[in-house]
This record gives sequence, structure tokens and C-alpha cells, in this order.
Amino acid sequence: MITRHELQEAQRYTAARLAEVGIVVTADERDAIEVADFGLSRLEETGLQLLVYVNTDRYCAKELVLMPGQTCPEHRHPPFDGTPGKEETFRCRSGLVHLYVEGEPTPAPACEPPPGAYTVRHEIELGPGEQHTIPPGTLHWFQAGSEGAVVTEFSSASRDDLDEFTDERVARETVVG
Amino acid sequence: MITRHELQEAQRYTAARLAEVGIVVTADERDAIEVADFGLSRLEETGLQLLVYVNTDRYCAKELVLMPGQTCPEHRHPPFDGTPGKEETFRCRSGLVHLYVEGEPTPAPACEPPPGAYTVRHEIELGPGEQHTIPPGTLHWFQAGSEGAVVTEFSSASRDDLDEFTDERVARETVVG
Repeated sequence: MITRHELQEAQRYTAARLAEVGIVVTADERDAIEVADFGLSRLEETGLQLLVYVNTDRYCAKELVLMPGQTCPEHRHPPFDGTPGKEETFRCRSGLVHLYVEGEPTPAPACEPPPGAYTVRHEIELGPGEQHTIPPGTLHWFQAGSEGAVVTEFSSASRDDLDEFTDERVARETVVG
Repeated sequence: MITRHELQEAQRYTAARLAEVGIVVTADERDAIEVADFGLSRLEETGLQLLVYVNTDRYCAKELVLMPGQTCPEHRHPPFDGTPGKEETFRCRSGLVHLYVEGEPTPAPACEPPPGAYTVRHEIELGPGEQHTIPPGTLHWFQAGSEGAVVTEFSSASRDDLDEFTDERVARETVVG
């Protein structure tokens, strides 16, 4: 759980980072910025800020904003409604993000995950203008660099409520302002 | 047809407009900017510049860059491969774009289309941070304001080669650098 104050602070932070990279949002969108602490009450360590532009039954687009060193915990997107589940492309807009996916563990990875259940260690580094596509059902987690990060996510239809987290303490707690 | 010189100029223009709004692109992406004159050889009047970020068999994301007053001619996206056809969301990043779709004609619309076959006149004005979603199969065209426009397009899978244009002279001529 996060407090009302934490929510408002995180929304302010997110709006400021988006403005910094030249992304214009409406007043309604600003108020609809989602702040997820994944039920761990350690937002700055494990959390994510999101602005959903559109989410139809066919495609979705969002901005993901991460605080410095903030981690989105390990999860995967399962099949639903006869689809293979969410396929997603992360495109880094600013800052640096390290993405970890299934595959050969990277020796000396750039990030340590926070305490919790993390099992995949194949590292992909994304700087501004770089992107990577994650197939449905693939375990992944990511962590921002020391300046935080803004990442655009293009994907098939998004059903955050179905996400499967490796750490059973984690819940997709989303607080909307 | 456009000349090699026109292509390079249009790519330069597009890269500059993207940079202006803070969008970072890789060198490979810059070289892959598409310039479409729709076979009319009047690029500044009827044309479109595109950067495709990703186009899987489920979703697609592109930046569309328009020169001042430039028009993307009237077309629709037909069904294919058992899908209803492309559904798309236009989100204006900078400048102004007027979108025309099926529906009640707008009295005193902001734009005149260039010479050619244009049949829909229901106007939607999109400034920075505003967006609109077009269902599959809907006729539409759009024109940039006097400063040009940068528009992000989120959509289901894109098959430009299947687009159906109202003007039979129009072909989806895409020139890649």
C-alpha cells in the first residue's frame, strides 16, 4: 500500500519526467497516472509509474516511468481469451534501463535485484532510442539506472490483472489518483 | 515518384522534427525513414514521412511526420488474414493535425483537401497530447497545420500494401532510403 501523499509525489515525479522528454499529456491523463508498489510498500525500491495511452482488445501503448534504481519485479504475461498473451516492445526514451529475460545468465550483470524471487538474469541494456521485444509468456524484470528512465511500451492487448509474478508476495496493486 | 534528392531532403526534415520533440532514433532508424508520395509526385502537397518502430503480427507503432499543410490521402484499412483490419490510434505530439473520418460533415472545416477524390468531412482536431482511435474499415484522411505535425500511431498489425485509397490514381508508393 502507498499513502495518498506517496501517490501524489509519484504522479508529480512522473509528469515531470514525461515533460522533460517532451511528452505532452492532458490534465486528465496526468490525474490518471498509475502508481504500482506491487503490494510491497517499498515504492522507490520496487515499483512502477504508468500512463496508459490506449488499451483496446487488440493493442496497447503506455509510458513507463522509473525512479532511479527502481525495479519492476519479475513476471510474465500468460495466455488469455484464446490469445498467446501479451507480447510487448520496450523502447527507451531517456535514461537507462536494464531488462532481464530468460536465457543464458549474463556474467557480471549491471543490476542486483532487490530482495525477493528473481530467477532470470539474461541482461539487455536499453539506452535512448533502443528497444527490445519480449514474446508472450517470457519471464522478465527490469531496473532503471541512476537517473531513472522513461520507457514507451507498445504491445498487444494488456491485462495487468493476469500478470504472474515469481514472488508470491507480489500483487499487481495499482493505485490510480 | 520522388527523386533521390527529394527522399534525402524529406528524411532530413523528418529526423529534425523528431529530434525537436525529443524523440531519439538510432542511425539505422534514421536511414530507414520512409517517404511516401503516393505515386502523385507532389510530395509537399500529398505525402507522408514514417518511422516504423515495430510491426509484429499483433501490433504496430510508428511516428508519422507531416510537412506544413501536407495531406495523407483518403484511405481505409480492409480486413486481412481473418482479422477485421487495422485499428489505429493517432496521438499528436507536436503541431496540429486535422483528421477527417466518416460521419456528419463538419460545417466550415479547417482544411481543404488537395485535388483528388475525398469523400469524408467529419473533422477531428488534434493538438499536442490529444488522440483519436479509428475503427477498422473507416475511410479517413488527414492534413497538418501550418507548422507541420508529429503524430505517433499505435495500432494493430499494419499492412500498408493493402490500403484502399478513394482516389484510384493513388498508390502506396513507399520509398525507403
